[in-house]
Amino acid sequence: MSDSRPDADTWPIAAAMLPFLGTTTSGTPVQDAPGEVWGAALAEVADAGFTEVDLTDSWVRPGDLTPQRLDELAGAIRSAGLTAPAISAIRRSVIDPDSADDNLAYSHRTIDAGAALGCAVVSVGLHRPLLPEQQKAHWFWTVDGPRDSDDPETWSRAVSRLRELGDHAASVGVQLSLEMYEDTLLGSADSAVRLVTDIGSDAVGLNPDLGNLYRLHRPIEPFLDALAKCLPHSNYWHVKSYLRLEDFPSGTVLTAPAPMDSGSMNYRRAIKMALEAGYTGPFCVEHYGGDGLAVAARNRDYLRGLLRFDLSDAASPEVR
Amino acid sequence: MSDSRPDADTWPIAAAMLPFLGTTTSGTPVQDAPGEVWGAALAEVADAGFTEVDLTDSWVRPGDLTPQRLDELAGAIRSAGLTAPAISAIRRSVIDPDSADDNLAYSHRTIDAGAALGCAVVSVGLHRPLLPEQQKAHWFWTVDGPRDSDDPETWSRAVSRLRELGDHAASVGVQLSLEMYEDTLLGSADSAVRLVTDIGSDAVGLNPDLGNLYRLHRPIEPFLDALAKCLPHSNYWHVKSYLRLEDFPSGTVLTAPAPMDSGSMNYRRAIKMALEAGYTGPFCVEHYGGDGLAVAARNRDYLRGLLRFDLSDAASPEVR
Amino acid sequence: MSDSRPDADTWPIAAAMLPFLGTTTSGTPVQDAPGEVWGAALAEVADAGFTEVDLTDSWVRPGDLTPQRLDELAGAIRSAGLTAPAISAIRRSVIDPDSADDNLAYSHRTIDAGAALGCAVVSVGLHRPLLPEQQKAHWFWTVDGPRDSDDPETWSRAVSRLRELGDHAASVGVQLSLEMYEDTLLGSADSAVRLVTDIGSDAVGLNPDLGNLYRLHRPIEPFLDALAKCLPHSNYWHVKSYLRLEDFPSGTVLTAPAPMDSGSMNYRRAIKMALEAGYTGPFCVEHYGGDGLAVAARNRDYLRGLLRFDLSDAASPEVR
Repeated sequence: MSDSRPDADTWPIAAAMLPFLGTTTSGTPVQDAPGEVWGAALAEVADAGFTEVDLTDSWVRPGDLTPQRLDELAGAIRSAGLTAPAISAIRRSVIDPDSADDNLAYSHRTIDAGAALGCAVVSVGLHRPLLPEQQKAHWFWTVDGPRDSDDPETWSRAVSRLRELGDHAASVGVQLSLEMYEDTLLGSADSAVRLVTDIGSDAVGLNPDLGNLYRLHRPIEPFLDALAKCLPHSNYWHVKSYLRLEDFPSGTVLTAPAPMDSGSMNYRRAIKMALEAGYTGPFCVEHYGGDGLAVAARNRDYLRGLLRFDLSDAASPEVR
Repeated sequence: MSDSRPDADTWPIAAAMLPFLGTTTSGTPVQDAPGEVWGAALAEVADAGFTEVDLTDSWVRPGDLTPQRLDELAGAIRSAGLTAPAISAIRRSVIDPDSADDNLAYSHRTIDAGAALGCAVVSVGLHRPLLPEQQKAHWFWTVDGPRDSDDPETWSRAVSRLRELGDHAASVGVQLSLEMYEDTLLGSADSAVRLVTDIGSDAVGLNPDLGNLYRLHRPIEPFLDALAKCLPHSNYWHVKSYLRLEDFPSGTVLTAPAPMDSGSMNYRRAIKMALEAGYTGPFCVEHYGGDGLAVAARNRDYLRGLLRFDLSDAASPEVR
Repeated sequence: MSDSRPDADTWPIAAAMLPFLGTTTSGTPVQDAPGEVWGAALAEVADAGFTEVDLTDSWVRPGDLTPQRLDELAGAIRSAGLTAPAISAIRRSVIDPDSADDNLAYSHRTIDAGAALGCAVVSVGLHRPLLPEQQKAHWFWTVDGPRDSDDPETWSRAVSRLRELGDHAASVGVQLSLEMYEDTLLGSADSAVRLVTDIGSDAVGLNPDLGNLYRLHRPIEPFLDALAKCLPHSNYWHVKSYLRLEDFPSGTVLTAPAPMDSGSMNYRRAIKMALEAGYTGPFCVEHYGGDGLAVAARNRDYLRGLLRFDLSDAASPEVR
């Protein structure tokens, strides 16, 4: 998945639409709101200095829009001066025991919508909707969510369904990216690599969203070790950071979202590793809690600085 | 309390004097120090880019200055290139079982001093002095302080005394603002709104200093829900942020002061809500711990950016 | 140790080489790598805006280089546009029960290397190598490490050996600085001051690296109180900050590295106190976890701003 390295100044870095609610203040779904409501949100993203947006489907579901409304969305994106390199479909697992078939159909529609919007990537995952107990928590990731079965049938079904989505994506010129998430078949570097390898499609890669794992209040795989395994298979990347506080003797762990420039995850080394590994995919900058858009903008500026890192000096890769 | 919206570039955003000690290095109270000592502190505030200062009375108590010394303070403020839109009287509850009458008299004097200094607002609260156990703590809010009685007599006394202060304030052209604080009659959105409503004076409003509640190591009311209730009654606003780390299953909560641009409180949405609600009062930026003045300055710049938010597009209020 | 105050704009503020690993990606020790590998790391430091570097010996040990390789290091530093005001020798205690003599010899060689490189300071400490349990921890300081014996023989040996190093340092025009670290004879302000006083050499001072103590998950001496005691004896200063979260009633403490501009340590007051105390030594900006170099650069900018503080106004020292 490695072509030539994009120019650091124009490497696509998209704002996640995560900080924008799916319901307007007057109570209607943003999905059904007039295009001006979409435009106002997208203008706010552009105002924060973004040129790209990831259409997180907790805001608007492109896959559920009529062709006419999809045109309206494309117009709103264009009018805001943005492009959309990606749609991220969240909590729509194609092996969800309750809604696998609906989610598969939805994912297919989302791929078509992505193609219509000129997206390079559609990102999907195997995580399921938040449980009531997770919704009650201040930070949902501090409560365990559903866990994928580890039986061989589930694995095969995941492989075949994701391969089916990949074939569809390939046919319309889109890449499919698989978002890593705890307690799913994409919940560790080894499992994620094995899954994408079993799928075995040029159109399917990983989204090494390792912030999802780093923030857990339990022992974790070291970030850079996991990343090293995933990078050769990655075609899209949700980046975000956390402060991780651990009292080793008692096992107490607490985390909170933090800007990438000052969080506990070492993105300087991560991005060097990505450049060395030939990663060329787009990025999506995320942040939970507080002012998600402002921190995402700061993450973008920080990330763009790192992407300027000069590998031409033969010694650089030695440095880390 | 909503006139026309102030211009974002000149909307008063005052530095709290909280980071400045009430005692000089040579051991004298700043209250009694020569005007040059006041001037040096105020110059430092101006040097941090402020044009307004909140005269937090842990630094200097304007209400206890002679007219001549009050003139000296006014001169020091002017010389530093500042104005003082507010005095914040801290821990001077007019229903404190130990010092209610003294505090009432002091609050009256503070209102007069505020008028003399050209302040628009005097902020008072119902919280009492820190207990010894709170003073020993690294962060005082992690130890429970005194709790207001919930009997009807206490409530009536609070209403009548605060109304009395409001009447005085109105007579000298000043607004009285009531700072929210845990375990007082101003300790929840509902109670605060009920109190200000019972007082029923145009000269009395709320100071929705919800950082005071957000930082507590116990379950809390969601920040934006509480704010929504308080905004229609608010005439001044101490803003500050915290990181809030919660392990939901165990109930463990830890907090630390954080810049507003990257703390866990969503001030982007809060300020949009305030603009929609027609809030027009001054702001005071605070920060505890570390470099309070530097973070306050950063909070000011962040806040001013948010105040530029354009509501003219009819769709914007829908966005949040 | 106080000459005239350096100019704030050129006061030496060195980047610690801490964020750079001691092993290259191809597995060789950086110690043995070609000069271009050194040059690439130093260029990255310069690219972050630094003009000075602290040669932390976890990266390269100047004391173990041949004269020719030391020249090569000097050339690499020069080529990067940097100077090296200091070498920091880490975990090489001259009273380590296992390796005291080796460490003493190494410290002597490091002083000679420092002189050859034009360093003003060599910083040493009494902390020993991390224990296996510390290496397993997410943050090593959350696990207790070795503790210096408090018997009089250990004390005398520390005094005589550090005095011996100081005499050597003085003879080649270098200052020796003693880094404060928990559970060593330099583990509290009182003990550190007593130790440096017992040594009694103009060439030996303290490195009040109080971040080392502030980050501990146990009760601590207040930062500014400890600093006040140490400042008159300090000739070098590793600065860094942490968020410190404490639940006082339960005694729970968690910490995480944070930028100096927004961490919980009050460096504004600390630097004022240092200027008042006549501190004139170089600084070294550190940061653990995440992007150590980026935060160090931010720490440098923040620190330089504080160093511009104007003490000429007679009232300023009164302000704090």
